[in-house]
Amino acid sequence: MELRLTTWQEVAGAIREMAVRGAPAIGVAAAYGMALAAVRSHAGSVEVLREDVARAGAGLAAARPTAVNLPWAVARMTEEAAAAHAGPAALREALRAKAEAIHADEVERCERIGEHGAGLLRAGAQVLTHCNAGALATGGFGTALGVIRAAHRRGPGLHVWVDETRPLLQGARLTAWELRQEDIAATLVTDSTAAWLMAERKVDAIVTGADRIARNGDTANKIGTYGLAVLARAHGLPFYVAAPTSTIDPAIERGRDIPIEHRRPEEVGAGAAAGVGVYNPAFDVTPAEYVSAIVTEHGVHRPPYLFS
Amino acid sequence: MELRLTTWQEVAGAIREMAVRGAPAIGVAAAYGMALAAVRSHAGSVEVLREDVARAGAGLAAARPTAVNLPWAVARMTEEAAAAHAGPAALREALRAKAEAIHADEVERCERIGEHGAGLLRAGAQVLTHCNAGALATGGFGTALGVIRAAHRRGPGLHVWVDETRPLLQGARLTAWELRQEDIAATLVTDSTAAWLMAERKVDAIVTGADRIARNGDTANKIGTYGLAVLARAHGLPFYVAAPTSTIDPAIERGRDIPIEHRRPEEVGAGAAAGVGVYNPAFDVTPAEYVSAIVTEHGVHRPPYLFS
Repeated sequence: MELRLTTWQEVAGAIREMAVRGAPAIGVAAAYGMALAAVRSHAGSVEVLREDVARAGAGLAAARPTAVNLPWAVARMTEEAAAAHAGPAALREALRAKAEAIHADEVERCERIGEHGAGLLRAGAQVLTHCNAGALATGGFGTALGVIRAAHRRGPGLHVWVDETRPLLQGARLTAWELRQEDIAATLVTDSTAAWLMAERKVDAIVTGADRIARNGDTANKIGTYGLAVLARAHGLPFYVAAPTSTIDPAIERGRDIPIEHRRPEEVGAGAAAGVGVYNPAFDVTPAEYVSAIVTEHGVHRPPYLFS
Repeated sequence: MELRLTTWQEVAGAIREMAVRGAPAIGVAAAYGMALAAVRSHAGSVEVLREDVARAGAGLAAARPTAVNLPWAVARMTEEAAAAHAGPAALREALRAKAEAIHADEVERCERIGEHGAGLLRAGAQVLTHCNAGALATGGFGTALGVIRAAHRRGPGLHVWVDETRPLLQGARLTAWELRQEDIAATLVTDSTAAWLMAERKVDAIVTGADRIARNGDTANKIGTYGLAVLARAHGLPFYVAAPTSTIDPAIERGRDIPIEHRRPEEVGAGAAAGVGVYNPAFDVTPAEYVSAIVTEHGVHRPPYLFS
């Protein structure tokens, strides 16, 4: 399936409805959305064009609250718009080039994350992952799946346990598909099977992506990640987070300050008895103390985390 | 929906396909299945009738492996068949009466479990439960839901977090419906939201049923239960098991000896990418060290557990 989005509002809608999802990917999409807003604007001056682009940026940044890559990409594009430009046409061209550069950067970051992270997984490792932090989430090589891909290329025998990831089943729909494409051995499980796999000693490491990382290393990611990290600790297993530095929010000191998106009851409620409420947070926060290492494009970071 | 089952083979099929499910309920269903086999048998002697009933018992006992209530009920019916009877008609009648007695006993046990367990939950408690251990699982008042029901009757303000319970969604389909019928406040969550609820201090206690309890208190129950127990420990929360003594298996010393049923991949795999395997254990085993108390019809048992 291919989406053709021709206005920034359509891009924002695709982010909101999760046709585009995954922290790095929605940042890249927002950058293209702002470039699109510039192309579609009829502004005859740089000043008016900047206003149109700023309006698009505000709308795109508001599409989803948790992944910081979204406001991060909007801020990079806004900086570009604020620079000196010869005229509206030059500004439009500069924004298009900037969006492409952000995209290329994210792809390259993921490849470097893979290289740095691969060494964390021994040959033949049994790796559990949650949600989808692959090419479909990042516009490129993947973060958590980038680490898995790179480890798979280094040696044979790697096997991946894929959490189905309720309510939207990104693991079953996306991660399982990506691993299949790469011929990486994978087995799908329900989310609540993960603890039992650990008890049965069928897991060597857990690797996930991230939607926002606080300066102290507290990490927001798909609901269910926190539980996996606590269970990993209880079973003496390492829990790794893989994310580009665009996922680190220097304005957030601790995880408790990360905004958590709550989504529609209908996502969970299919089949539920009428009249019973639904609580549907899309993310949870894993305290840094449960995170064995955070892999970014710069390398493998170990606690204590002191990002800036 | 009402099922009309007219042969023991149909009863066994209903147990296998989980049209009848829940450890106490499948025990009761197996007892009725054996009574039905006696009624349908054309045997002209007590001896031949015993053989027909034994064949039905073996088939029913094999329908599902984990819940011990199934072989327990078959053993009770087999004892009844082995007793002295004046003739085939008297044996048929005795087996019908025995099945009804087993059913009535299980209902009464659940009511007593509720009475004993209600004191574990303070007024206004936030209780999390997994799968369905209610009237729909027990032929009566429920085990875990019996405790919740009884606590609700004692004081107002109780609220229940209902795990949807993948893959078959017994929480979303059955438990949510039962709580709604009783006007008990309830909110549905995905299974992997439970840990985050505990971190947010929105849970005071976890209560589940059981499918088989070893002599040392190790407890087999719906997949996901073990993870909840480990998470409860990590958050300093009590984890309670509610089950009639028909769920205790005196022949099993430790949890590792409990047979775990693995079910069809298709239960999980709906929506999964083709070519990826599925691992679908229906149960896991929670070591007794994680179980704060086991509530039976005899009272509240605390560790160390020494059942016989």
